[in-house]
Amino acid sequence: MARIDAPFSTEDHVRRMERAAAEATAAGLTGLLVTPGPDLLYLAGYEPIVTERLTLLVVQDGREPAMVLPVLERPDAEHAPGAGAISLTGWSDGGDPYAAAAPLLDPAGTYAISDSAWALQVLGLQEALAGVRLRSMTAALPMLRAVKDADELERLAAAGAAADAAFADILGVRFAGRTERAVAADLAASLAAHGHARVDFTIVGSGPNGASPHHEMSDRVIEEGDMVVLDFGGIKRGYGSDITRTVHVGEPTSEEREVHELVRRAQQAGFEAVRPGAACQDVDRAARAVIAEGGHGEHFIHRTGHGIGLTAHEPPYMVEGEERALEPGMCFSIEPGVYLPGRFGVRIEDIVSVTEAGGRRLNDAVRELQLVA
Amino acid sequence: MARIDAPFSTEDHVRRMERAAAEATAAGLTGLLVTPGPDLLYLAGYEPIVTERLTLLVVQDGREPAMVLPVLERPDAEHAPGAGAISLTGWSDGGDPYAAAAPLLDPAGTYAISDSAWALQVLGLQEALAGVRLRSMTAALPMLRAVKDADELERLAAAGAAADAAFADILGVRFAGRTERAVAADLAASLAAHGHARVDFTIVGSGPNGASPHHEMSDRVIEEGDMVVLDFGGIKRGYGSDITRTVHVGEPTSEEREVHELVRRAQQAGFEAVRPGAACQDVDRAARAVIAEGGHGEHFIHRTGHGIGLTAHEPPYMVEGEERALEPGMCFSIEPGVYLPGRFGVRIEDIVSVTEAGGRRLNDAVRELQLVA
Repeated sequence: MARIDAPFSTEDHVRRMERAAAEATAAGLTGLLVTPGPDLLYLAGYEPIVTERLTLLVVQDGREPAMVLPVLERPDAEHAPGAGAISLTGWSDGGDPYAAAAPLLDPAGTYAISDSAWALQVLGLQEALAGVRLRSMTAALPMLRAVKDADELERLAAAGAAADAAFADILGVRFAGRTERAVAADLAASLAAHGHARVDFTIVGSGPNGASPHHEMSDRVIEEGDMVVLDFGGIKRGYGSDITRTVHVGEPTSEEREVHELVRRAQQAGFEAVRPGAACQDVDRAARAVIAEGGHGEHFIHRTGHGIGLTAHEPPYMVEGEERALEPGMCFSIEPGVYLPGRFGVRIEDIVSVTEAGGRRLNDAVRELQLVA
Repeated sequence: MARIDAPFSTEDHVRRMERAAAEATAAGLTGLLVTPGPDLLYLAGYEPIVTERLTLLVVQDGREPAMVLPVLERPDAEHAPGAGAISLTGWSDGGDPYAAAAPLLDPAGTYAISDSAWALQVLGLQEALAGVRLRSMTAALPMLRAVKDADELERLAAAGAAADAAFADILGVRFAGRTERAVAADLAASLAAHGHARVDFTIVGSGPNGASPHHEMSDRVIEEGDMVVLDFGGIKRGYGSDITRTVHVGEPTSEEREVHELVRRAQQAGFEAVRPGAACQDVDRAARAVIAEGGHGEHFIHRTGHGIGLTAHEPPYMVEGEERALEPGMCFSIEPGVYLPGRFGVRIEDIVSVTEAGGRRLNDAVRELQLVA
């Protein structure tokens, strides 16, 4: 239980499990199979160490939630906020966890299973329960955690404000002559100083490394004249932050200024497309259109955004083909970029929530190009 | 690539992929499907951020290794030590990763897939490739990474020595009047100071919390008279450490001394059972017999050990029913324990490797009961 700070109440978890069961039924599912990770934390407030040992919560209409788990982890599980509403069954090392799980499932049921459940366990369940049909949560019930309640939105806003503060800090540190790794360590320390319990990523992509969107960091020494992509985040009070800003070491060229401004306008266009009822893909299209008109369509090589909550990446995704409608309470990134191979990259990212009135930015660090030393 | 320190050579990775393909064939498999995590790091030296986006390496006899991956991660993947021997195919956001993977697989083949591959992707592959049969790596090819070479053994020994040094450090800190969380922070700092790039777990189970084997830590204040289980480890130069010692704050009772000595003798008996050709379950039986004879059989509620390498838990498992034979180069924990609910627990754990001559301890911190202040 050590990793849960500021837990939700038992009532919150009971309400979430009831809603999950009802949504599963409405989606034509028998129920949900939930394994350690964000779904289990959301529904039960329980966060065991993820290992090869099976822990499986079964949630379905008309039955008490039930969980099989390693007997050695039972004492800790009993302290989870949602545990009082869940019937627990321990299995012992050397025993068969799938046999222990079988009585909890409808033998001919169709269940959605947590996206990050291990193959080891998915294949084990399929072999032990040949009549059960499994679907992934993202395929069958993607919006389970997508609409955030007021408490969750407050936590996401606080995480965003902390990330903004870390960006303000980093503007004051030395870039030129230091390695990406050293600047990344500064970012991590700053996120922690602003209340992050965990730092998940600190991307520092300088010069040509910025043209690789998931380049994390390296021992490259940052030089005068470099564009530097800074993309960082972690977990504060259980919820995620994720912000990107691109800065320049010393005076930029006019091309660098133009590309940055193009991305800034694309990010703004994506933000302005946010309103209840708009399709997810509309946000992607709005941002992408600006970059395409600026002549860099082929250099924007990823989707515009991803949902965020207990994890840094979750539905809904702002991507072409995602026709699902935005609803108030959804939270996601808007992060267009332009990547010029071998030269530099620019990305600007805010977390945005959907309100009745349109988008609300949960990051508000300055978006105009900042020059660093 | 940021998280790989001290990478292996391209030749190491090519050799491993060739051996993996041959072992797959020998096991009746068409090949292996490898996803981000320890298998991919082992075979390709590639460690992307684990996300919902599909990255899949296909290794099979008679074909060049091939990998599909998100196009935005391709630039980083190209720098992985094994990448030069792998044909890369990028897929773009909004595209179909399973369609991109399909041409790499025999449409009627049987593949072992990494244990920690996500359900999202396992079910996606099953839907897209109905003729392909998937088995888990642990079911089909559990020994893929189990026998360590000389370089790996050296890294595991160095990680073990660093964990021993952290235990020596912790004997000098104050326990009484401080929280488990504070002592855990001391352990984490000490592991880092002794060269761990990552701290994975720092269990501090004081008094009754020690009777819950996977209790990690809490805000409980440690008191004079407490037994305290300390179980900690992480990653140094890419390989894992994992050690447990149980200490006592002030003078123990005779019962506490007796239980500790019983567990120490059980650990020694497990160690003495290690030799090439012995079954994994023999190690468990040897340790368990000592505890059962001491009248605490029902209080030893987990298996005796797990393999260790790039991960903290991997095959082989020292558990009843595991009849596989020990081979030189295998590395695993021997960690019997006695747990008295509501009172205290004792566990003693060393990492041990198998040599032609028997077991070799990679931890050698003092195993007799140590008293702390």
